[in-house]
Amino acid sequence: MTILEACRAGRVPEEVAAAAKAENVDPEALAASIGQGEAIVCRNRNRRNCRPLAIGKGLRTKVNANIGTSKDQMEPDLEMAKLRAALQAGADTVMDLSTGGPLREIRRRILEECPAPVGTVPIYQAAVDTVESGRSITEMDPDRLLGVIEDQAKEGVDFVTVHCGITREGVRFLESQPRLLGVVSRGGSFTVAWMRHNRAENPLYERFDRLLEICREHEVVLSLGDGFRPGALADATDRGQIHELMVLGQLTLRAWEAGVQVMIEGPGHVPLDQIQANVQLQKRLCHGAPFYVLGPLVTDVAPGYDHITSAIGGALAAWAGVDILCYVTPSEHLGLPDVEDVRQGVIAARIAGHAADVAKGVPGARAWDDAMAEARADLDWKRQIELAVDPARARHVRERCLPGDEEVCSMCGEFCAVKVFSGRGE
Amino acid sequence: MTILEACRAGRVPEEVAAAAKAENVDPEALAASIGQGEAIVCRNRNRRNCRPLAIGKGLRTKVNANIGTSKDQMEPDLEMAKLRAALQAGADTVMDLSTGGPLREIRRRILEECPAPVGTVPIYQAAVDTVESGRSITEMDPDRLLGVIEDQAKEGVDFVTVHCGITREGVRFLESQPRLLGVVSRGGSFTVAWMRHNRAENPLYERFDRLLEICREHEVVLSLGDGFRPGALADATDRGQIHELMVLGQLTLRAWEAGVQVMIEGPGHVPLDQIQANVQLQKRLCHGAPFYVLGPLVTDVAPGYDHITSAIGGALAAWAGVDILCYVTPSEHLGLPDVEDVRQGVIAARIAGHAADVAKGVPGARAWDDAMAEARADLDWKRQIELAVDPARARHVRERCLPGDEEVCSMCGEFCAVKVFSGRGE
Repeated sequence: MTILEACRAGRVPEEVAAAAKAENVDPEALAASIGQGEAIVCRNRNRRNCRPLAIGKGLRTKVNANIGTSKDQMEPDLEMAKLRAALQAGADTVMDLSTGGPLREIRRRILEECPAPVGTVPIYQAAVDTVESGRSITEMDPDRLLGVIEDQAKEGVDFVTVHCGITREGVRFLESQPRLLGVVSRGGSFTVAWMRHNRAENPLYERFDRLLEICREHEVVLSLGDGFRPGALADATDRGQIHELMVLGQLTLRAWEAGVQVMIEGPGHVPLDQIQANVQLQKRLCHGAPFYVLGPLVTDVAPGYDHITSAIGGALAAWAGVDILCYVTPSEHLGLPDVEDVRQGVIAARIAGHAADVAKGVPGARAWDDAMAEARADLDWKRQIELAVDPARARHVRERCLPGDEEVCSMCGEFCAVKVFSGRGE
Repeated sequence: MTILEACRAGRVPEEVAAAAKAENVDPEALAASIGQGEAIVCRNRNRRNCRPLAIGKGLRTKVNANIGTSKDQMEPDLEMAKLRAALQAGADTVMDLSTGGPLREIRRRILEECPAPVGTVPIYQAAVDTVESGRSITEMDPDRLLGVIEDQAKEGVDFVTVHCGITREGVRFLESQPRLLGVVSRGGSFTVAWMRHNRAENPLYERFDRLLEICREHEVVLSLGDGFRPGALADATDRGQIHELMVLGQLTLRAWEAGVQVMIEGPGHVPLDQIQANVQLQKRLCHGAPFYVLGPLVTDVAPGYDHITSAIGGALAAWAGVDILCYVTPSEHLGLPDVEDVRQGVIAARIAGHAADVAKGVPGARAWDDAMAEARADLDWKRQIELAVDPARARHVRERCLPGDEEVCSMCGEFCAVKVFSGRGE
C-alpha cells in the first residue's frame, strides 16, 4: 500500500504521523487531506534518512531550493556547500538540477547528507548521458529516460519533475498564440525538440502508466512539470500554458487512481494581476492537488534581483493557495547561483511564504510576528536578533553601526519613537 | 496663484507642463487631475534647480528615498554619497531626515545638489533645536516649530511631512485599542509626548491655517503624516490609525480650499490581506488625494531584509492605487542605512512600483518587460544588461561566472532552453 492508498483507507501511515508532528497539525486531518489529494507527504521508501515532509492545503507554505552543477561549474564540493547553505537558511526541500560533472556522484552525496526531501529532473541525467554518448538530445532513447527515472527512484529520490503534460496537441496550441520567449523550461525544450525531430508523441505522456508503476513501487511523488511555463510577462496564461495544465489535471486523476501522490508545477513570469487567476485555475483543473510554483516573477526587468521579483509574486501566489515556492536566486537569468545566492534565495522565498501564511491564517504563523513586535516594544535586541528570519544577518547589520546608547539603534538614537512614546527616555 | 489654483482655473502652469513632458502624459489631463486633487506636482517656488515631478492617479508609481544623519552618524559627506546613490539608483524624490550634526548645512547641500524634489520632517529640526538648548522634546515651543517650517519653505524644501492628524480625540482612540508597539513614527511620538506633557491639543492641528499660509506662499506640498502608523502586523488598521486618516481627510479639504497641494502618508506594517482595504479606505476618506506609503512591510520577522518585505507590500499597495512608495532599506529596524543599503532600498522599491505599473496598465510600463523578453529571446546579453533595472549589478553577476559558450549563461550552458527550443543549438 502506498501512503495515498493507506490514507484513503482511513489509516495514518507512520510517515504521515511524523510529518503531522513536525507541522504541529492533527495526523488524522492530514491523512484525510492526503487521501483527497490536497496534501502530500514526501519520502521515498528507499531513503531512511529523510524526514517526511507534508505539503498542501492549510499547511505552512514550503520553500524549495534548486542546486546543481552546470558545464561551467562542475565541482561537487561547491554543490554540497550550497546544500548546507540552503538547509541552514531554512529550505524545506532541495532539488538537484546538476547537468555538469559527475552527476551520479553528486546525487548520491546529496541524498546521503540531506535530511529534507530531494527532488530531481531525471530528463537532465538522460540528456547528459545522451550527449556524452555523442548523440543529440533529439536522439534520446525513451527507454533510457524511463530507465533513468527508475534508477533515481531506487536511489531514493523523493520527488521527480516530469514534463508529462506536453502533447502534440499542446505544441499546436503553443504555436497558435505566438510567444516572445518560446519555451524556457529546460525539460520542456528538450521534450519539444525531441517530439519535433522524431515526429512523435511525448514519451512521458505515452508511457505515463509505466511511470506510475515506478513511483508506486518506490513511493516517489510526481511533480508534474510545466514545460510551457511563461518566461516573460507577455507569454503568461496563454493557450500553450493552459493546455498543459489541463492535461496535468487529467494525469493527476490517473496518478491518484494508481495510488501515486502528485503536485503540480506552475509559472514562471506572471504579472501581478494574473497570479490569483493562475492559482484558481490550477486548483480547479487539477482537482485541488498541491501547487508548486517557480516565482512567480512579476517583472522581467530585474536580473540580479529576481529573488525580490519572485518574493513579490510568491507571496501573492501563496496567499492565493500555492503550497510550495521554488526559490529564485539573485543570479537567475545571469548565471549559476553561488552559495550566497542560495542563501538569499531561500530567505526571500521564506519571507514570501510566511507573509502569505499570516494572510491565510495558517495556525501559529502570526505568533512569530507578535513575538518580534513584543521584543521591539521591550527594546530587547538580543531577542529581536534571535527571532529574525536570518539572525546572523540581523546581528551583522546592527553591529555595523552600533548606537552610543545600546538601548536603541543608530537610526534614531535618542529620538527612538518606542523610547519617546513609552516615556522611557524621560 | 498656486499650481492647484491655476489647474483648477483650467490653466497649465509651466511646472505642470514640464512634469507632464517628463512623464509622457497629456499636460491638460495632468492639470485636470491636479485640479481634482488626485495628482500633485512637487516643486517649491524658491528652488529653481528642481525638476517638477508629478505624483498621482494614472501616473508611474514613484519612489522616495530617505537619507539623513543621526547622533550615531553625523558626517555630512556620507549623506551626500547616499543622495547620489539614491538618485543614481532611480529615486524620484529624496527626504532628508537628519537628526544629528549640522542639520542646516546638510539640508542646504542636499537642496543645492538634488535635481529631484526634496522633503523634510520639520519637527526633527525643531526637536534637535529644543534638545540642543537643554530642554526636553515635551518643552518644544509651538511657535518655534512653525518658524522651522517657514524657514524650510523659504530654503526651498518641496514637501514637508507634518503630523497634523493627531488629535486629543485620536489619542483616546489609540489608547482604547491596545497596541503591541504603540507609536513608532518619530514625529508621532514627539507629538503625543508633547500633548500629554502639556495637556494640550496638537499645535500643528490647531494652527493648520498658519501652516497652509506658509505652504501657499512658497508652493510647498503638504505630506500629511501618519503618526499612528502601525509598527507591527498586530497593530494594523486599528482605531488610532483610522481616526488619524479620517482627520487627514478633513484637513485635505481645507488645504485644497487654500490652494495647497496634498499627499497622504500611510503605513507601515500591514498583513498582505489588509493592504487593499487600507488603500481603498485612504482613497475614499481623503477624497482621492495621492497616497504615499512606507512599505508596507508584510511581516515583522525579517530585519536585515525589510527592503524585501516592503517590496512585497509595496507592489500590492501600488497595484491597489498607491502613488508613491517610500523605500525601506535592509537596515530598517537595525541601524542607519549605509550607501549600499540606500541603493538596495531604491531598487527594491522600483521593482515593486514597476510590477504594479504593469498590473495597473500604466501606459508604456509593459514595453520595458517586452524589450527584455526580446533581448532574452535573441540571447543578446549586451542589451539584457542595458535594460536591467541595475545594469552594473546584472553585469557583475553574469561576469562572476562566465559561460564557456558566451551565447548562453553558466546556469544551463549548452542546455539553454532558449537555444534548444529555437533550434540554434543544432
